[in-house]
Amino acid sequence: MEKSPLQLARAEYQPKLPKALQGPVKAKEGNPTQSVGNQEEIKKLFPNTYGMPVIEFESGEPYEMAPFNVGVILSGGQAPGGHNVISGLFDGIKTLNKDSKLYGFILGPGGLVDHKYMEITSDMIDEYRNTGGFDIIGSGRTKLEEEWQFEKGIKILRELNIKALVIIGGDDSNTNACVLAEYYAAKEYGVQVIGCPKTIDGDLKNEQIETSFGFDTACKTYSELIGNIQRDCNSSRKYWHFIKLMGRSASHIALECALQCQPNICLISEEVEEKAMSLDDVVAYIAEAVAARATDGNNFGTVLIPEGIIEFIPAIKKLIAELNDVLATDEAKEVARNKQLDYVKEHISEENLKVFNSLPTEVAEQLALDRDPHGNVQVSLIETEKLLSHMVATKLEKMKKAGKYVGKFAAQHHFFGYEGRCAAPSNYDADYCYSLGFNATRLIANGKTGYMSIIKNTNSPADQWIAGGVPITMMMNLEKRNGKMKPVIRKALVELDGAPYKYFVSKRETWARYTSYVYPGPIQYFGPSSVCDQPTITLQLEQKK
Amino acid sequence: MEKSPLQLARAEYQPKLPKALQGPVKAKEGNPTQSVGNQEEIKKLFPNTYGMPVIEFESGEPYEMAPFNVGVILSGGQAPGGHNVISGLFDGIKTLNKDSKLYGFILGPGGLVDHKYMEITSDMIDEYRNTGGFDIIGSGRTKLEEEWQFEKGIKILRELNIKALVIIGGDDSNTNACVLAEYYAAKEYGVQVIGCPKTIDGDLKNEQIETSFGFDTACKTYSELIGNIQRDCNSSRKYWHFIKLMGRSASHIALECALQCQPNICLISEEVEEKAMSLDDVVAYIAEAVAARATDGNNFGTVLIPEGIIEFIPAIKKLIAELNDVLATDEAKEVARNKQLDYVKEHISEENLKVFNSLPTEVAEQLALDRDPHGNVQVSLIETEKLLSHMVATKLEKMKKAGKYVGKFAAQHHFFGYEGRCAAPSNYDADYCYSLGFNATRLIANGKTGYMSIIKNTNSPADQWIAGGVPITMMMNLEKRNGKMKPVIRKALVELDGAPYKYFVSKRETWARYTSYVYPGPIQYFGPSSVCDQPTITLQLEQKK
Repeated sequence: MEKSPLQLARAEYQPKLPKALQGPVKAKEGNPTQSVGNQEEIKKLFPNTYGMPVIEFESGEPYEMAPFNVGVILSGGQAPGGHNVISGLFDGIKTLNKDSKLYGFILGPGGLVDHKYMEITSDMIDEYRNTGGFDIIGSGRTKLEEEWQFEKGIKILRELNIKALVIIGGDDSNTNACVLAEYYAAKEYGVQVIGCPKTIDGDLKNEQIETSFGFDTACKTYSELIGNIQRDCNSSRKYWHFIKLMGRSASHIALECALQCQPNICLISEEVEEKAMSLDDVVAYIAEAVAARATDGNNFGTVLIPEGIIEFIPAIKKLIAELNDVLATDEAKEVARNKQLDYVKEHISEENLKVFNSLPTEVAEQLALDRDPHGNVQVSLIETEKLLSHMVATKLEKMKKAGKYVGKFAAQHHFFGYEGRCAAPSNYDADYCYSLGFNATRLIANGKTGYMSIIKNTNSPADQWIAGGVPITMMMNLEKRNGKMKPVIRKALVELDGAPYKYFVSKRETWARYTSYVYPGPIQYFGPSSVCDQPTITLQLEQKK
Repeated sequence: MEKSPLQLARAEYQPKLPKALQGPVKAKEGNPTQSVGNQEEIKKLFPNTYGMPVIEFESGEPYEMAPFNVGVILSGGQAPGGHNVISGLFDGIKTLNKDSKLYGFILGPGGLVDHKYMEITSDMIDEYRNTGGFDIIGSGRTKLEEEWQFEKGIKILRELNIKALVIIGGDDSNTNACVLAEYYAAKEYGVQVIGCPKTIDGDLKNEQIETSFGFDTACKTYSELIGNIQRDCNSSRKYWHFIKLMGRSASHIALECALQCQPNICLISEEVEEKAMSLDDVVAYIAEAVAARATDGNNFGTVLIPEGIIEFIPAIKKLIAELNDVLATDEAKEVARNKQLDYVKEHISEENLKVFNSLPTEVAEQLALDRDPHGNVQVSLIETEKLLSHMVATKLEKMKKAGKYVGKFAAQHHFFGYEGRCAAPSNYDADYCYSLGFNATRLIANGKTGYMSIIKNTNSPADQWIAGGVPITMMMNLEKRNGKMKPVIRKALVELDGAPYKYFVSKRETWARYTSYVYPGPIQYFGPSSVCDQPTITLQLEQKK
């Protein structure tokens, strides 16, 4: 692997650890815990892993430990820092006994089921320290949910003499990690399972988990680009830039980028849903901001759009649900492609027809015609950033005729996702991820299973960070999935009474009207701490006393 | 203006200067020069500014200089480092006499004509040191070509007692700077004109100008993103990413990004033209690389595409030329929109019809229907990255049926332009631009006009850089523009016998087949010199002895 000068220099970086993890640890156990909802049901489903205490590590006495092997899985989409979780795991087991081994299962959970693995050696790990991507062992989206998978898994785990399996993933993967932990505990298979909180979207977050890893780096990478675009926008003064950002089910990324860059407009899906806004309401909100800036002669600006916004508009959510039903029938499947649009219009409710007819033709067609392999409407194909800018242009034309808008409107479009998912981790993510991995080995050494590795107080310098574990069951409740109630980790949406959103709301009118752009620039790894080591503004606001 | 932590830290950076500029200078003059082409004609057009010597500055004796005023104009599209040219100018005149003043003309050359200007003060300049963008005074695309503009200009220049005007721009702007210099010299108006070489595309380059400013930063920013995408691509192993990059008339950016990132494929417009490739040839070239990787089980990759590629395909160039002619007639303008496609097909030559029919329908429609305000085909509207990936998909389907391809093909699309034009300048661009501006004041102090400020030997440490000036006429030849022969600076395309291209060609087969990605990461300002201070690979290869 040929390396860039930055990679070569960055390979030398030694991630920071919380003080407690810098030497031998002792586990301090709290009181028994309960799940966040449906306590009785969750308890019944997880008799062996329910109610366990939260754990905090403190400095302890040195202890001897026999060599032990650990397996690791990367599950789901990439997030910056995954390689550092693995290097933390590697260094963690080696400090306990240098003969311990780390095995990586290849291309995600499927590697466990299909017995595809490799030993992660010292030479290998050194190639990947402080780098982005999940390419060291690859990732995958196979879900570990079935008994036969668990049984196939145990075979290879036993063959490799693996004491514990670490699953690095999002809410679903950690839920499944807990189901697996419970299954192996119930069967007394003697293999522990530990989770690590990853989602780039930042929606795996709660009282115990301050942030999911990768969120910091991704937001900083997108903010660099947004800042650059804003500087361009403010220099040429002739375009409105519509910038779509990752975040299907939560708007944390858009919100954090707004806090960093102070764009003119940032849409928050959770707010759109809470206020039951229509697509036209959203368009009108943007168009009015455009018109207001035009009165000052400023025919330029920036709009941040979370990827999932369309699905948060209640009227469209309803329409999509009905379209999925209507088009799933055998009758509908027989309809010729060029008759399908008419068929849809004849078969949906009057209320939904009104919404359907209000959509731009191409979007309506996309909703009626394009299906994913499961037969569902493909919302992700809709280029929301273009849809919104076209509708804003149309609205502005009307406003112009009504004498309510004087100005020129021209738009540029951007979508940032892949640009940040595999960026090299910021110092924050490098330290946080390394600590999560290192800490997981201490949970393993303490015989824990069904726990998630957690690191807290991360708005303070790393040596003040708090390391420990939280029972995964503690974060669970029951939710309907595919028609059945299932135990799941509750997804963290943007809280409309939370400090980051409230701060944004207190500023957004000023940002909309005036040019208040901030230009964060690229992530820095070597400069002053004020530049290199700041966590996200979201976290800073959340932890402000 | 609220500033990010990076901006605050970066404001302290003191750009480096060539040794000769660190104290008083003496101008060493070379032999009389000639233009690169059409010597007789150019000499006739520029009797007062032709044949002047190349100048190199050396350390000289201290000298006193009365206060003098300078005007500055930013012309055309933004490029990283424009603010540093201005801060170099500012510091340069102040070191000669602290009572000298710098005036900025607002929103480009139009500011000179319309008498819109501001004095650039010390407080103001400190806000903009080492930042991206052209927002300090704004830029514009008005062309200074007409006598009445020159005459309006001289009024305000005299009113402000301006001794010299510095025009920061690309090849056209520098050509016009020279025309203006000649005009003022001929009229003995006593105002000098100096140019500074800016183009993000890197196509203002020749034996005297090593690189145009902004190219370094823009390429590094795009390479950061391409590297991130490649890391993602190599982790999830399921997409081909088609990445379009700035560069309408030259492929320097795509080439430099390829040298930095080692993607699977990089198209070079100049090569496509030289080899007279058809669109189908280009598509086949990509499809074969995709198929070859698929035989190794690698159904992923990256393709870099210069923005202007379509216009370099000779057959399409011809087609567009004929379309422009056919659709420009009064008859054509009367044709209803829904009949226009048929009209086009009936009126173009058989050869062009064949090419036209080979295009995907939407592209053909776009070429036939959408016109710019001058009535020309809007090539820039074509989403080349999508066009190519769709055509590759179609070709692969055929290859599959013929048993020549086994694999899956799914594509993602990106276009990077605005993301890098206003990035904060790299150390290289910060130093280079500051030196260009500072150096311009030495040309002014030496009474020069019709010169471009140049800094050479920039592959060495800054104190070994060579500062001087080159007569703009030296770079000129005559070319046809709008049907008339005009003196212009020759555009620098990628040279197919140049070292950067030849190095690329020596590597590209390996890069195409195997995964040889390099991940450059974000621009660093504070780390080790190997990371922060390297010029582009293009420049390193060009200057390799």
